[in-house]
Amino acid sequence: MRRIRIRTAYDGTNYCGFQIQPGMPTVEGELNRALSELTHEDINIIGASRTDSGVHALCNVAVFDTESRIPADRLSLAISPFLPGDIRVTEADEVSGEWHPRKQACIKTYEYFISCGSFEDPMTRLYSAFSKRDLNIEKMHKAAEYLIGEHDFTSFANPSSQVLMDGGSAVRTIYSIEIEKKKKGYLEGLSEVRIAVTGNGFLYNMVRIIAGTLISVGNGLWKPERVKDALLAKDRTKAGPTAEAKGLRLSRIEYTGKEK
Amino acid sequence: MRRIRIRTAYDGTNYCGFQIQPGMPTVEGELNRALSELTHEDINIIGASRTDSGVHALCNVAVFDTESRIPADRLSLAISPFLPGDIRVTEADEVSGEWHPRKQACIKTYEYFISCGSFEDPMTRLYSAFSKRDLNIEKMHKAAEYLIGEHDFTSFANPSSQVLMDGGSAVRTIYSIEIEKKKKGYLEGLSEVRIAVTGNGFLYNMVRIIAGTLISVGNGLWKPERVKDALLAKDRTKAGPTAEAKGLRLSRIEYTGKEK
Repeated sequence: MRRIRIRTAYDGTNYCGFQIQPGMPTVEGELNRALSELTHEDINIIGASRTDSGVHALCNVAVFDTESRIPADRLSLAISPFLPGDIRVTEADEVSGEWHPRKQACIKTYEYFISCGSFEDPMTRLYSAFSKRDLNIEKMHKAAEYLIGEHDFTSFANPSSQVLMDGGSAVRTIYSIEIEKKKKGYLEGLSEVRIAVTGNGFLYNMVRIIAGTLISVGNGLWKPERVKDALLAKDRTKAGPTAEAKGLRLSRIEYTGKEK
Repeated sequence: MRRIRIRTAYDGTNYCGFQIQPGMPTVEGELNRALSELTHEDINIIGASRTDSGVHALCNVAVFDTESRIPADRLSLAISPFLPGDIRVTEADEVSGEWHPRKQACIKTYEYFISCGSFEDPMTRLYSAFSKRDLNIEKMHKAAEYLIGEHDFTSFANPSSQVLMDGGSAVRTIYSIEIEKKKKGYLEGLSEVRIAVTGNGFLYNMVRIIAGTLISVGNGLWKPERVKDALLAKDRTKAGPTAEAKGLRLSRIEYTGKEK
């Protein structure tokens, strides 16, 4: 038996999230079906990140066990005809039987995109949130600084998070939050804001709540300092709204420990 | 009666082209419906460019006549709730009753995008064609030079073009063809090629046939010089294939004559 690790990129628009749910279109369900058809085995992958309904990914990681002899470096190509166009396996390699994508130390980067202007750009509407108000990047930077480092992120987690309900820790480390704005050259008056959050782990909805809070700062509803108070309160009701799923993508997972 | 000119941006994925067709989803049909609902009149727009099924636009132009008193500069905002998310009116102004978007001299730019790599990027699959082979930009540049200037583009037009069937001229002027390639930073091994064609008018499928021909050069199937022969032959069968609709977008229309 071999354990194969895959990296997958997907457009989450048409899926009820990554995690398999009976009778619903999910990324995990499509990958299981496609890998089972390819290998003629009953494949059940284990995913690194259970992205929400409508959230995208450039590099989600998963593993599966197989008796198949297909070389790992051929898998990306071989699986394509079995997958819908909005899911691709971008890389594959063989790992040890103990390697588990949720039990290894890793650094994850999520990106959040916001399209700003008087109308929503039809060409990016599936991959960005929309703000009619322009966003003040300097204020967002200032607010984001309060979140950098090791903190209890209870205020920035959905209270129905399984980890929190099980009494687990809400302490996580955010290494960096990049925020940048650029004009969309092709449509006058429109700009795009990108927020990239890198950390050692994220609670349920954490990046979307961070994005929603930073948007509240950027559009002037919140003062940057309020983010500090929100963090210290350890109370979800003190942070900003959960930003739309469609603006979020899981962009990078880097395993920092022994890889195989 | 006032004549209003609008500029529209749309994701053409879900439409059977711009031009209205009974019982089919079209951009023109949606705009007529939305404008009629907004003004409580029976609005029938006249469009500048009848983009094909699946083709996108950032700036297609259209006009309509109305008794409504809505200020033109409020139209973009007012119409949004009546339109699906994949169509937006980006600008509007008032023009004289004689101004017709297909009867004025103009310069149009179309862009064609090709995603290159071992797999098709799920995040751009609706807006780019796909090439497994890498494209040689230098050879494409050389081939494109044969097309610059005033030529008879019979070889680069769909023979069922109404203009040609009516005995009209296939002579058009291409002012420039830009071709550039950049790496997609977010997915290793993938790159994107952009072809931007600017001219004073285009025959049916002309940009897609130019793109398909330049792709044939870029991927090594054709020598650049063959494009010269194809052009001189005035025979559609001598040019390359018609590239996929989804990679094409109408990016700019600039009216060069008296504007209003």
